[in-house]
Amino acid sequence: MNSLPSQQVNEQRLWQRHQIMAGFGATSKGGVNRQALSREDVQARKQLVDWGAALGLLASHDPAGNLFLKLQGVDPDETPLLCGSHLDSQPTGGKFDGVYGVLAALEAVQAIVKVGRPRRSIEVVAWMNEEGSRFAPGMMGSAVFTGARSLGDILDVQDELGITVRQALNDVFEQTSDIPKLPLGRKVRAYIEAHIEQGPVLERGHATVGIVTGIQGKCTFRVRVIGEAAHAGTAERAERRDALAASVAIIAALTECIYDKHDAVKFTIGRLLVTPNAPSVVPGEVNFWIDLRHPDSGTLRRLADSIEPVCRERAGPCVVEVTEISRAMPSTFPPEICACIRAAASRLGVSFRDIYSAAGHDAYYLNRICPTAMLFVPCHLGITHNEAESATPSDLAAGAKVLADVLAELAE
Amino acid sequence: MNSLPSQQVNEQRLWQRHQIMAGFGATSKGGVNRQALSREDVQARKQLVDWGAALGLLASHDPAGNLFLKLQGVDPDETPLLCGSHLDSQPTGGKFDGVYGVLAALEAVQAIVKVGRPRRSIEVVAWMNEEGSRFAPGMMGSAVFTGARSLGDILDVQDELGITVRQALNDVFEQTSDIPKLPLGRKVRAYIEAHIEQGPVLERGHATVGIVTGIQGKCTFRVRVIGEAAHAGTAERAERRDALAASVAIIAALTECIYDKHDAVKFTIGRLLVTPNAPSVVPGEVNFWIDLRHPDSGTLRRLADSIEPVCRERAGPCVVEVTEISRAMPSTFPPEICACIRAAASRLGVSFRDIYSAAGHDAYYLNRICPTAMLFVPCHLGITHNEAESATPSDLAAGAKVLADVLAELAE
Repeated sequence: MNSLPSQQVNEQRLWQRHQIMAGFGATSKGGVNRQALSREDVQARKQLVDWGAALGLLASHDPAGNLFLKLQGVDPDETPLLCGSHLDSQPTGGKFDGVYGVLAALEAVQAIVKVGRPRRSIEVVAWMNEEGSRFAPGMMGSAVFTGARSLGDILDVQDELGITVRQALNDVFEQTSDIPKLPLGRKVRAYIEAHIEQGPVLERGHATVGIVTGIQGKCTFRVRVIGEAAHAGTAERAERRDALAASVAIIAALTECIYDKHDAVKFTIGRLLVTPNAPSVVPGEVNFWIDLRHPDSGTLRRLADSIEPVCRERAGPCVVEVTEISRAMPSTFPPEICACIRAAASRLGVSFRDIYSAAGHDAYYLNRICPTAMLFVPCHLGITHNEAESATPSDLAAGAKVLADVLAELAE
Repeated sequence: MNSLPSQQVNEQRLWQRHQIMAGFGATSKGGVNRQALSREDVQARKQLVDWGAALGLLASHDPAGNLFLKLQGVDPDETPLLCGSHLDSQPTGGKFDGVYGVLAALEAVQAIVKVGRPRRSIEVVAWMNEEGSRFAPGMMGSAVFTGARSLGDILDVQDELGITVRQALNDVFEQTSDIPKLPLGRKVRAYIEAHIEQGPVLERGHATVGIVTGIQGKCTFRVRVIGEAAHAGTAERAERRDALAASVAIIAALTECIYDKHDAVKFTIGRLLVTPNAPSVVPGEVNFWIDLRHPDSGTLRRLADSIEPVCRERAGPCVVEVTEISRAMPSTFPPEICACIRAAASRLGVSFRDIYSAAGHDAYYLNRICPTAMLFVPCHLGITHNEAESATPSDLAAGAKVLADVLAELAE
């Protein structure tokens, strides 16, 4: 290479593409609602494929709905690099979570093309359903790609309207019939994912790039509390089996039991559904979802194991069913590839620091099959999964520059 | 009259009509979901109008969507009697709540026609949206008919899909354009409503008919808890404004504060909505609805007044808005008309007892403008607002017999 591809990264173009992507599922409050495999997701995929085609990238879908844009390397026998993130968002999500990693990868590849075709192929990837808000749990596409879950395992998962992943995938494939279908999974030389931090550490520490050393563990549960519907005006307290009253008692007890004065644990009930959910009917059933995270395996395991007993103990006259949906222990990225990112940032004069990821990412699963790394850029005030999520054009470009140089180095 | 109309009441026909009505909005578990002004409600209205037409009853709608079937009396100058209840149901409701009062009124009128036209007109009425599950609060049609609320006040109320009462009414009127429209409200000689008890008192006491002496008071509130959406994996507890965590603390405190060891108070949170309601997003907003009832005015007032302070005190880092939707003090029915029902039951040899209504009914509003009474029939185990709600053909017929004789007496 005559020059570093980072010099070809175009801040303006990268910012502009974020604004265009934010138009697919734009909310009135300036955020994004782009659910996995939705109409808006298809619009975003098509836009990405168009941008890639202009650079000569070859688009493909795998059977799990992961989208790849391949820059063919000089040596087709070399195992490819993967670089990307996801295009789906939370229902009231922002303009940067996920999409940044995909657009930064595209920008890096575009910069690399400018300085000359690399030896190894590089594929920009958009993983299917990272967020898990339409189909739970998330990181579905990367889980299937890496063999952590089977394809058959996800196809019957339903969204709130009863639409299965299978139906939604077929729908997307029909609307994108010009994108060829590849078989599931393959060898990967390395995977790198850029992402907004989703926390306040970089901004507070005046660092532009975070070298992610690992991802905290995460366990998710669904709790079903079964009572009996009754008339709010006539049913006596002693006879009631009020599923919401029981759920409130359970949640209050869990909150107390999981409390950690150091605040290392993250305990959230983000989703709760009441049935029949009518103002004058004693609730007959409540379902709620628990999201529990901790950086330490032992602690996470202990807390996760305490959930079911607490639910049973506080269910009162109701019946409770606890389903563990996922249990992902903390993961650490290989030091060599982190060192490579650190060196690239240093060469570019971009300020950086090591950071631990509190959020889950597709990189979690990729780390099981190939050397994996992540780099973070600052996210204003750490606000994320929120329409107010924001990042600056120059920080986004700085991350893409580091990414371009790292990819170019790994692709040689 | 040569004979009592009660002798003409047909148990088989009355039961059959309940089964036909239960087909409009039938649920897979044997219950009924017939929301106010829905397609199923229109089907039920048309069926009722057809049955009435066969007896020569004149159908009409008023601007609030209340449906009347008039048996023209011999003397058109006499103020009419009204008798009925409602056709709408809870989302997972039963076959008898509401519809029994309408069908018992129809059966009574059919029996009266058989023994001779009465002096005074009798109108069978189906009040619009008693349940309040689609459009809150309920008893909407009777409230507007009696002037307790203005028509303008209800027209902009929206259902969950953003459809207004105005739109839904226009839709119903279009689909029933053959039913003439009458102006709102008129003088009423007396109103009688038959209903299943919705409690276990009659069944336990082996009484077939309950003479309802009054209705307990009811206050309803909407509580809006405003926090901030955040990422479940990254947001630290100290920085979170978790609207669901705050709501759980509020509800736990309210439950404790409103507790009454005599169990005369009825406190229910039947409806609760989380926003954005995604598994890995800290909830940004929660809305929940409180249904509070008590037979004593002073106690009800005191408890209702305690709700807002408790909500504010326990909201933690969230902002809370408490809206009182309705405040209806306990109501007592006139003794004379209760005595008339007692006498009719006694003549027929039907076992009866006085009873207090724990549930709200359209009779509550009618009692403001005319002498009003209610009669209850047993409801198995008191199970109601539930698909398992059940009543026996003979109890339903016994109530209709008493009703027929009382109406005939009041219409002379």
